[in-house]
Formats: sequence, C-alpha cells, structure tokens
Amino acid sequence: MAKPLEGLKVIDLTTALSGPYCTMMLSDYGAEVIKVEAPSGDQSRYWAPVHEASGESEYFAVFNRNKRDVCINLKDPDGVALFYDLVKEADILVENFRGGVTKKLGIDYESVKAVNPSIIYASATGFGQNGPYASRPCYDIVAQAMSGMMMLSGYPGQEPVKACPSIIDQVTGLYLMNGILLALHHRDMTGNGQQVDVAMLDSAFSLMENYPSVVSMGHEAPARSGNRDVSITPFDAFPCKDGHVVISAGNDRLWTKFCEAAGLYELLEDPRYVSNQSRTDHYITSLKGQITDWCMQHSKAEIESLLVAAGVPCSAVLDITESVRHPQILARDMVVRTEHPLIGAFDTTGCVVKLSATPGSPEMPAPLLGQDNRGILGLSPEEEQALIEKGVLGGRGVQ
Amino acid sequence: MAKPLEGLKVIDLTTALSGPYCTMMLSDYGAEVIKVEAPSGDQSRYWAPVHEASGESEYFAVFNRNKRDVCINLKDPDGVALFYDLVKEADILVENFRGGVTKKLGIDYESVKAVNPSIIYASATGFGQNGPYASRPCYDIVAQAMSGMMMLSGYPGQEPVKACPSIIDQVTGLYLMNGILLALHHRDMTGNGQQVDVAMLDSAFSLMENYPSVVSMGHEAPARSGNRDVSITPFDAFPCKDGHVVISAGNDRLWTKFCEAAGLYELLEDPRYVSNQSRTDHYITSLKGQITDWCMQHSKAEIESLLVAAGVPCSAVLDITESVRHPQILARDMVVRTEHPLIGAFDTTGCVVKLSATPGSPEMPAPLLGQDNRGILGLSPEEEQALIEKGVLGGRGVQ
Repeated sequence: MAKPLEGLKVIDLTTALSGPYCTMMLSDYGAEVIKVEAPSGDQSRYWAPVHEASGESEYFAVFNRNKRDVCINLKDPDGVALFYDLVKEADILVENFRGGVTKKLGIDYESVKAVNPSIIYASATGFGQNGPYASRPCYDIVAQAMSGMMMLSGYPGQEPVKACPSIIDQVTGLYLMNGILLALHHRDMTGNGQQVDVAMLDSAFSLMENYPSVVSMGHEAPARSGNRDVSITPFDAFPCKDGHVVISAGNDRLWTKFCEAAGLYELLEDPRYVSNQSRTDHYITSLKGQITDWCMQHSKAEIESLLVAAGVPCSAVLDITESVRHPQILARDMVVRTEHPLIGAFDTTGCVVKLSATPGSPEMPAPLLGQDNRGILGLSPEEEQALIEKGVLGGRGVQ
Repeated sequence: MAKPLEGLKVIDLTTALSGPYCTMMLSDYGAEVIKVEAPSGDQSRYWAPVHEASGESEYFAVFNRNKRDVCINLKDPDGVALFYDLVKEADILVENFRGGVTKKLGIDYESVKAVNPSIIYASATGFGQNGPYASRPCYDIVAQAMSGMMMLSGYPGQEPVKACPSIIDQVTGLYLMNGILLALHHRDMTGNGQQVDVAMLDSAFSLMENYPSVVSMGHEAPARSGNRDVSITPFDAFPCKDGHVVISAGNDRLWTKFCEAAGLYELLEDPRYVSNQSRTDHYITSLKGQITDWCMQHSKAEIESLLVAAGVPCSAVLDITESVRHPQILARDMVVRTEHPLIGAFDTTGCVVKLSATPGSPEMPAPLLGQDNRGILGLSPEEEQALIEKGVLGGRGVQ
C-alpha cells in the first residue's frame, strides 16, 4: 500500500530526541528523510547503550530508522552551498538548533525561503523563536519543572516527581509533526510554505489540562496527590501481594461491581461509602486502607482477573519487560523487530497511528554517519574523498 | 490571516478529554467542528469545577472552545437519519466511543463510508480497534500502568507514580490529530478517505523512549530512579531554601560552569568528580548531598539567576499559579482569555503550534448543549420543538 507522505522530501537537521522523533514519524509514513549531520554527528550517536562490537549507539538507531544520511560541515561555506542544493528540492526542513544558531549558520527561515519559497520550515526549540528565553538551552526536566507539571506529580509532603522517560521531548515532536502537517495541507491548497515554531515549554504547559482555567477562576490550585484522583473514588494505585495495581471504579455502578467482585460486601453497606462524594471524603482516613488490605491478600493477576471480569477498569502496574510482551501491545504491532547492519536485530516501537488505506511502517535501519553522501549529493568516490579532506564533508571512518 | 483547515467540516462525536482535545485543535486551526452530543451531554459537562451560578462545567468549557453543537439522540432511528444528513457534508468524523459501540449504533466506519466514501473517520479508544482488549474501557491511569510508564516514575523503594495531569489523554489526542492530518494529505492528493485508529495504550507505550530496544538487547531494564538521569551527572531536582530547583549540567563544560557559578571550587578539584562517569558513580554516595547542601543555602530565584547567567540549564520547580504568569509562557501567548456567555471570563491554554502564515487561535467559547440544533439541522423553532418532544433531539433547558 502507498504511504501518505510518499513523494515528499525532508531535510532533517535535528539531533537527540524531539526532532528525530518527528522526522522518524514523517519517514514511517513515507516521506524521504535526509538527515544532515555535522561531522561530529548527532549527539545521540554517543548515547548509551552503545553496541560494544561496532561502537554504534543503540539509542540513535531507535529514533533514526528509515532515514538517509549525509554528513556536511555547515560551518564551511562549501558545506552550506551543498546544503542549499538539497534545500532547493526539499518540501520540508526540520531543525532543533538552539534559538539563534540557524541565523549564525546562514540557514535560518528567511535565508532558506529566499531559495525555496514553498518550503515548510519547522523548528523545535526549548522555549520558541520569541520571548525572553528564546536563546536558552532546555532539557526535558527543565520543561517539566517550569510548566508546573513536575510539581503536580508525586505524593504530598514528598519530592516533586518528573515523569519518566523524557516524555516532553516526544510530545514536542508530536506537536512539531502536527505543525508540519497543518502547513502541508495549506501548501497543498495554495502552494505556499511557511515557518512552524514549536517549543518544549509550551508543549509541557499544554498538558496542564484545565488548570490555567482553574486558577484564573480563583479556585484552589491543584496539588500533588499521589496517584489518586482527588474527586473520583476509588481511583488510585494500590500495593498488592506481588506488586501494584491500579483500580478505577469511578461511579456508583462500578463501585458496586468492585465491592461484589472483591467480596467486600461490608463496604457496600458502610454509610461512609454510599456516594462518590462520601467515598472521597473518607478515602484517606479509612477506605484507602481497607482496599489496600484486600489487595495485599491477592496477586496482581488475581486482582486483574477478578475485576476485569466484573467490568471494573483495572491494570497491574507493569514494567517495560512486561509491557513489551503484553498481548494487546503485540496485537497492535507496537513492538517491531529491526535489523541493523552492525548492531543486529533489536525491538523498537511500532507506529501509533493506524491508517486503514495508507498505513505507516518502519522500513530501513538507522543510517551510518554520512553513508549516503555520494548518492544524495551526486559525487564520485574521488569527489567525496576530496571534500572530506577539505573538511566540507564527514562520515563514519573518515574522521 | 486565513487558517489552514478553513473550509473543512468535522463531525465531533467525542466526549471527555482525548477526542475533545483533538477536535479543539482542529477548530483552533480553522475547521468547522460540529459537536454531536447525546441528550445526556458529554460526560465532562458534569466535571468539576462547575460554575455555581450557571451550572455549566468550567472543565467542559476549556476543551470545547470554538465548537458548534447539536444534541441528537443516536439511539433513535430519526436521530441517526439526522446524523447521516450531517455526515454527507462532512470531511472528517471523530469519535472516541468504547470499542464496538459505533457498530451497535449503526455509525461505524463501514456504514458511514457507504454514505460518504471520502470521509476521514478517526477513532480514539483505550486499546484500539483490534486485539483482545479492544472492547475494554480505559482511563489515563490504566494506560500509564499497563505501558510501563508508571513503574518508571518516582523513587526507588517507593511507590510508582502516575504522571499528572491526565497526559496520556492529551497525547492520544495529539496522535489522533496527526492521523487525521496524514489522512487529509492523502485525501488532498487522491480524493480518498480512510479510517484512523489510535489507542491510549499505544500512545503511552510510544513514550517509553528506547526501552523496548534496551530490553530486547538484553541490557538491564531501566528502573525507577527519582528525578535523576542515571547516566548524566549532575542532572536532577534538588530541594533548596524555598522549594525545589532542577539543574542539568550534563557535560564537563557545564559541570565546570556550575561549580564556578556556585562557588563550589572544591568539587572541581575532587578526584571523584573529574569525569561524568566518575560523578555518576559517586552521585548518590556523596555528590548529591554536597549539591543539596549548597542549594539549601539559597533560594530558587538565587540559584536560577546564578546558574542561568553561567549558561547552566536550570529552573525552579514551579506550580501552576507560577507557570501561568511566567514571562516566557506569556510571551508565547500560551495563556489566552476566553469569554463564556454564562461562566464569564477565564484563562485557557493557547495554541502550541505557531504557524507564521496561517496561525491558529481560539475564537468562540464552548457551546451550550444543542445550541445550534436549528441552524445546523435547518429546523424552524416549531420543528425543533417537535423533535425534542419526540426524543430525537435534546438541548439545554429542554430536558
């Protein structure tokens, strides 16, 4: 089956995670992604785990599947000229340099637009293209801290907790993908390109649900409350015999089903627990302990099987070794085997968006540094070698 | 300026968060979104906080801005007929019923496609359209637990921690938006519609970064490690005089700058801290305590100002009352004022994706239940009233 982005050419200047995650998705859905790397390589080429025998980063290999690769020194004017040859034929450019860097290199939107007015130029940065923080560096943990997100996760009276892994990097990549596709539809309709500007801080802040509204209406600001929902009870994680489970019995009907499935008939008759409001009021002082006592007498598997049979939303808290072989994850093709020429076979994450007519799929392994220099730039081996010696190009094994 | 999705009509059958977040973004970028609600209304119309004077949910008002609204009873055949009148003219349909429900109502993809073959039919569910869990209910906390995400957040030896707020709902909405826009480009090119299928569990699992690769290569599975990065040091949150800060001095250059800015010259000379590996090896046993001691002598503002001046990525851990008035958040228009006819003025989150030529923006407040019945369905007041009395339509104040 055809893929939806076939025929589109993407110049990918991104490194690490937010940008490469976006361009990986573009490539999964059929765009030709040409990664343009500095001679030193994407910083994530050095990130653990590194495959011992080959020295290739297994981390890099995950987020750069399907991409082709040229290694150009953009600090050299001849390198910039080669880059602009690519730009002329590109539909989309994606970059995640720190604010101000593209200008210094002479590859900012205005310069690129002058050569290719219909290009979609997409930038992911820590803080965006404007504002007092525009040129500051950012990491996932900084965005989580500054947005208010970190302050909300964890237990009252304990430390704030960062959500793991680096989810804001990936969420930023998702917004960037949305921006590129919005601009693409506009280009399909009008022929005009434009600039897409996405920030990690904005991305993190956008996940604060309705809280900006809550505080602007003068309601009490939400506070760290562990895993429980503060207005629906029981809706929490509980320790059990061999781990933890989450149970969400969010209304009276599910509450009854939960008590029946657990054999906790005394809770059904307890006047403190007759309504959601009353269960919420007595949760910390008594109900939480009673449910925990029951859970501690059962295993994750027992609890999940009892409650799921009764229709109560519930799950064991799984670790990654369990989730990668979860029957639903496998049924959805969310774990896919990749074969890398140097690293060998390993698993990676499948495509989240399932399209009935034009599905995405991983095709090629991640590229070696500069592996497509000749093919993409149209160079003979001698020409490539000469440019490498002049410091215009780079590549694996030539530094 | 024009918006990129102008001229597109969206039928929005979604409730609560994942679906409404997606259709809110579609409407921010110019699509005409017609929310089709059951007479009982979107469940989030009852979610706290509820505006006392009007009885309108402030929660609902946040995620349903810009939308028009008809209230149709899809359990009544005449209601289904009215729905199909809308479907004929729609470009996109979005729904997040539990798996199997659209089939029962006779509004599944196959049925809708028979009437409108070029429609893009987008579904968000807990577990997707196939697999053993396809018909199960799901909540954000269940997806976080089952994906492996929850097990990774929090401190070793303590409870697993769910990331707050309900971020997987919103991430699912982001993937759904991506899917719709991928299908839209394909439709722009070919005229063909298709089905988009996105699951909360897949969305959560996709955020597990490179961990499926890590475990498939036989490396040790990642474990809960609090806020620190386990391979880069110092990269963590620290308590200070008046709260918490995060500090990411992820390489030797930043480490030196951090020590100099903090006046911790003795750390620079300590042989345990000469390299990132060595700092990581001695982090828990000594370095963490030394950095914490320094932080505890300073306020958030002092630390941020010292370290930012030195170029070390850093932030105070802010709560939502601080982030909503953060200068960078404000400079990026991430807090926007909305005026609701019954609730009054309140703040909500701006558009994350900044487009230079066709920017998005919130326009109208969220609709009252069934407020556009007449205009959209082309009914006289008498006809509307008759259909309401027959139980085909509903609406605020008429039940």
